Amino acid sequence: MASYELLYWPGLQGRGEFVRLALEEAGVAYRDIAQEGEEGEASSLVAAGLTEAGLATPPFAPPYLRHGRRVIGQAAAILLYLGDRHGLAPKTETGRLWTHQLQLTIADAVTEAHDTHHPVASQLYYEDQKPEAKRRAEDFCRHRMPKFLGWFETVLRRNPKGGKHLVGARVSYADLSLFQLVAGLTYAFPKASRRALRRTPQVAALANAVAGRPRIAAYLASERRIPFNEYGIFRRYPELDL
Amino acid sequence: MASYELLYWPGLQGRGEFVRLALEEAGVAYRDIAQEGEEGEASSLVAAGLTEAGLATPPFAPPYLRHGRRVIGQAAAILLYLGDRHGLAPKTETGRLWTHQLQLTIADAVTEAHDTHHPVASQLYYEDQKPEAKRRAEDFCRHRMPKFLGWFETVLRRNPKGGKHLVGARVSYADLSLFQLVAGLTYAFPKASRRALRRTPQVAALANAVAGRPRIAAYLASERRIPFNEYGIFRRYPELDL
Repeated sequence: MASYELLYWPGLQGRGEFVRLALEEAGVAYRDIAQEGEEGEASSLVAAGLTEAGLATPPFAPPYLRHGRRVIGQAAAILLYLGDRHGLAPKTETGRLWTHQLQLTIADAVTEAHDTHHPVASQLYYEDQKPEAKRRAEDFCRHRMPKFLGWFETVLRRNPKGGKHLVGARVSYADLSLFQLVAGLTYAFPKASRRALRRTPQVAALANAVAGRPRIAAYLASERRIPFNEYGIFRRYPELDL
Repeated sequence: MASYELLYWPGLQGRGEFVRLALEEAGVAYRDIAQEGEEGEASSLVAAGLTEAGLATPPFAPPYLRHGRRVIGQAAAILLYLGDRHGLAPKTETGRLWTHQLQLTIADAVTEAHDTHHPVASQLYYEDQKPEAKRRAEDFCRHRMPKFLGWFETVLRRNPKGGKHLVGARVSYADLSLFQLVAGLTYAFPKASRRALRRTPQVAALANAVAGRPRIAAYLASERRIPFNEYGIFRRYPELDL
């Protein structure tokens, strides 16, 4: 079986990070194009894969994963694939679908977090949409972030196997992704996230537990973990943190 | 096997419509809560399901589907479930995942179409975010809509089984959803969508072919099809159509 090749823009965590965390927890070998050579070369390789002429299943955008002859785009679809292969989701249909439903809701929260600094257009600079960003971030900090985190708290409280994991009694890719969401929100919105996480202690505890898992802890301490910065989804602009 | 029960807000197509189209094409019986009784009662039933205390798998938002003891949220996850059961996706892992990847990209386009009129906050009125909406809609009409439709055109052109379907040689839920996306864009942005669809003739042809499928045609002509209106995702505000 050929090993995995992850294609994502270099220099930022972005949506590629959700895939990296699953690959790291699975403990499998993978090639991370963003980490190879100069950033310009990596970007060119990622862009080239989007326009590769012969490909019947072209990705719309990074991240995408190559595995043998397969090319899979959309972070949630990649995780569905990896979850089955590496025990990062239950094997039952119900559990598998529930894990995916959690992931899709995390993806929605990620999009909304991104749009706090880019409410008008991804292709414009933040500096070109600051007034709009301020309004959107206010709604996100006051309403949407607490709503999303509150829902995950409810899910943890209701898990019949106990509140240490989102699904059943074992780690799933949804746990890893919730960690990443919490880490990102904590970076981007230190004040608003502290307020929200105080009301969602099980979410906060799960995020800490994921960070402490041996393979994830090793990854986070390594040079492979790109620091949060103002190129990614989660950006620290103090004027947006309410 | 108990029949399906779809829960979604009454009076608008919204994200519930993607599920309805799959259920209609499958030709299965389903109960559509939005179509029963007064709108107020339907809304209460939908809202009550979101906060039902004993439920281990609560949906974050409508639409959600009840099937026996299962409660499934997230339109894309519902379609993954229905696709397997009713031959609306290939049975192979690769084909199943590719269909889902297409659906997730349609979902991204739907979110962006929604955000043209609600770039600041879903809970505010359009009237409270008109300047922001105008800027976002301009980017959507000029860049994002053509990019999404252009990608689907590429997918159709590259389908090894011919360009009549997105996946293989048979209809899938992704085809039904692309029809709905095109119908919504055509309603909301008659000028911008005409321009984009002129460059994506296979997308336009697929949307027409889906509309002509016997069960879909019967559904679209029925009272069950709620007309597009200014409560849904796709809204016709002429000032946003560029």
